[in-house]
Amino acid sequence: MGSLPRPIFFLSDFGTKDWYVASVKSKIISISPNSYIVDVTHEIEPFNILQGAFVLYNLSKDLSSESVILGVVDPGVGTSRRGIVIETSKGNYYVGPDNGLLYPASSSEGISRAFHILESGDESKTFHARDLFAPVSALLSYGEIPANLREISPEELKKLEIPDAVISEKTCVAKILHSDRFGNLITNVRDWSLETEEEVELLTSKGEKLVVRFLETYGEARDREIIILRGSSGFLEISIKEGNAREITGLVPGEEVVLRRRKK
Amino acid sequence: MGSLPRPIFFLSDFGTKDWYVASVKSKIISISPNSYIVDVTHEIEPFNILQGAFVLYNLSKDLSSESVILGVVDPGVGTSRRGIVIETSKGNYYVGPDNGLLYPASSSEGISRAFHILESGDESKTFHARDLFAPVSALLSYGEIPANLREISPEELKKLEIPDAVISEKTCVAKILHSDRFGNLITNVRDWSLETEEEVELLTSKGEKLVVRFLETYGEARDREIIILRGSSGFLEISIKEGNAREITGLVPGEEVVLRRRKK
Amino acid sequence: MGSLPRPIFFLSDFGTKDWYVASVKSKIISISPNSYIVDVTHEIEPFNILQGAFVLYNLSKDLSSESVILGVVDPGVGTSRRGIVIETSKGNYYVGPDNGLLYPASSSEGISRAFHILESGDESKTFHARDLFAPVSALLSYGEIPANLREISPEELKKLEIPDAVISEKTCVAKILHSDRFGNLITNVRDWSLETEEEVELLTSKGEKLVVRFLETYGEARDREIIILRGSSGFLEISIKEGNAREITGLVPGEEVVLRRRKK
Repeated sequence: MGSLPRPIFFLSDFGTKDWYVASVKSKIISISPNSYIVDVTHEIEPFNILQGAFVLYNLSKDLSSESVILGVVDPGVGTSRRGIVIETSKGNYYVGPDNGLLYPASSSEGISRAFHILESGDESKTFHARDLFAPVSALLSYGEIPANLREISPEELKKLEIPDAVISEKTCVAKILHSDRFGNLITNVRDWSLETEEEVELLTSKGEKLVVRFLETYGEARDREIIILRGSSGFLEISIKEGNAREITGLVPGEEVVLRRRKK
Repeated sequence: MGSLPRPIFFLSDFGTKDWYVASVKSKIISISPNSYIVDVTHEIEPFNILQGAFVLYNLSKDLSSESVILGVVDPGVGTSRRGIVIETSKGNYYVGPDNGLLYPASSSEGISRAFHILESGDESKTFHARDLFAPVSALLSYGEIPANLREISPEELKKLEIPDAVISEKTCVAKILHSDRFGNLITNVRDWSLETEEEVELLTSKGEKLVVRFLETYGEARDREIIILRGSSGFLEISIKEGNAREITGLVPGEEVVLRRRKK
Repeated sequence: MGSLPRPIFFLSDFGTKDWYVASVKSKIISISPNSYIVDVTHEIEPFNILQGAFVLYNLSKDLSSESVILGVVDPGVGTSRRGIVIETSKGNYYVGPDNGLLYPASSSEGISRAFHILESGDESKTFHARDLFAPVSALLSYGEIPANLREISPEELKKLEIPDAVISEKTCVAKILHSDRFGNLITNVRDWSLETEEEVELLTSKGEKLVVRFLETYGEARDREIIILRGSSGFLEISIKEGNAREITGLVPGEEVVLRRRKK
């Protein structure tokens, strides 16, 4: 890529009906007019830090070149919460508020350095994305370390962990982390190996029991069959062929489910 | 445009709340960092191949320079359905699954060559947009023919036809193909000439009859008047001035209507 | 920025489910392939000129470099309403229909010159964004004055004013202008100074009375407390910490509220 600026991946809970996203981009391109800005999503549920963190965590697996990630879900904007930059071993910069949003993605890449962003005092109290994070992201994209960064110990960062599944050979106590646009229910189960077409009991917190098959593709399922498969990000997902598993099962993010092998 | 890469027009049913669109773009710009990626829409109804095909068909009339069109509505991802590239006489490349999605647009431009995309076996079974179609699109944008294309006969392509209206001098048996954001009901009637202010009877499949005028612009209609006009893509549309024809008529895509001239 | 083309900020009521936005962009990049196109929003309520004008007005405060602003909310497309270009003292070009949409933003920047866009007669009657405004925007972005502009007096422009609040020392008669994605209710009150934590009575048109505090940040509020603060665009906003003020108060854009100081 030679001297091209790094792409900036921008996630927020700003929605797309107001001028907020464009105001941030205007600031970025006034400083670094050749930076490629990629919208991740601006439809994070307002103030839902965990949801934003999970989306960034999954995206980080797919970042193919050195990138700047600007993440803003920021209910504490203007208070004492700090703005931060996290540099990772993979060579990415994460920019945003120090409220855990950036932690799962950056710590899974390996945190090499962390910085507080010093405020000048001229920033709006309600729109740091425009006044503080956009200029920092633009300079980092351009390859320049902003003058208002002060290195801190990564230990000082606000932590947020994606909850682990409790896994034994026969059973998994799992959590639904996310439901995507298709209604696929993405769990926190990564390292539980299943054989193709193996049957699994799925027990919900409401006491319901479903028997589902583990398959490799949506297409192999029977019409309307509830299945489990390994999604593109490596987590097990509860899905329905050409249907919406969230609507049909009633399961929602945050809910626990137990998975249990049926074979002896 | 000199040696600029071709723009990539990207349509999918991925929605915009997850990381999927950004993951595809990250892969593209890691290979071809100067390609202009234009989002067509990611709000195609999940798995609705016909809807996606209709949007691409209309877009293709408006593509003003040599382009790559990446279309992904792909319920069969990971199964035996093939990935394809279609080159058209107009100089565009269509990239996506061989399920009909790309057929109406590319065949209306004239198919000059068609290719299967060979899989390496390393692709995710559930996210070919990222692992297979993005790299192919990036290389084509850059002007390079990917090594994993194998030419096939266009006859082998899965076909999908936009249904024709049955047109006589006095009557049209038409189908509602699409309702747009404004609620305009776009039919499959192209070649039926009407005079400005000519009155037409519109018979619905529920037996209702409306008398509507053919006008050239929304603005000429009376307030709340249901009218017919020729939309920007050349099809007749049922519309209401500053109103939502879908909501007010109850007509939906897929439904048949009969249009009949009133003048003798 | 040297000889880089100006960025084009694009606002419309086209939505993002059809091909309309991509058709406009295709036309722009066929003429000016290096122009940065920034989507402001395409979710302006269909035909709601005032809403579009308010979003552009707020955006204009945040435009950091010389820009082209393409705004299309255009119920009169194809009728006698004219297409216009407005050049502002700040160095921006506004392009779109002459229906007031562009007026609040451009007049707040200072109008230096205004132009009618001459039609060739070949344009679609229903899609001037693609056929008329896109080419003009692309040329202006590129730094060229299109040949089909005819200068007019700014007095000829269709005017639209954002209604002023009626302000006295003790009382404000205000209007809700906009509710954003978070449910913040943005009023038309700019120049009414309040002290931090000062209490204000808020009287609704339904006769309800709330006592609310003026704070500087969302984070300082108590959970679920209704507050007033100065938003990022300088207007007073009615907000709730991590909640949706529109849903909880029932207030909607267009409604009047009276604000009254409580301290003596």
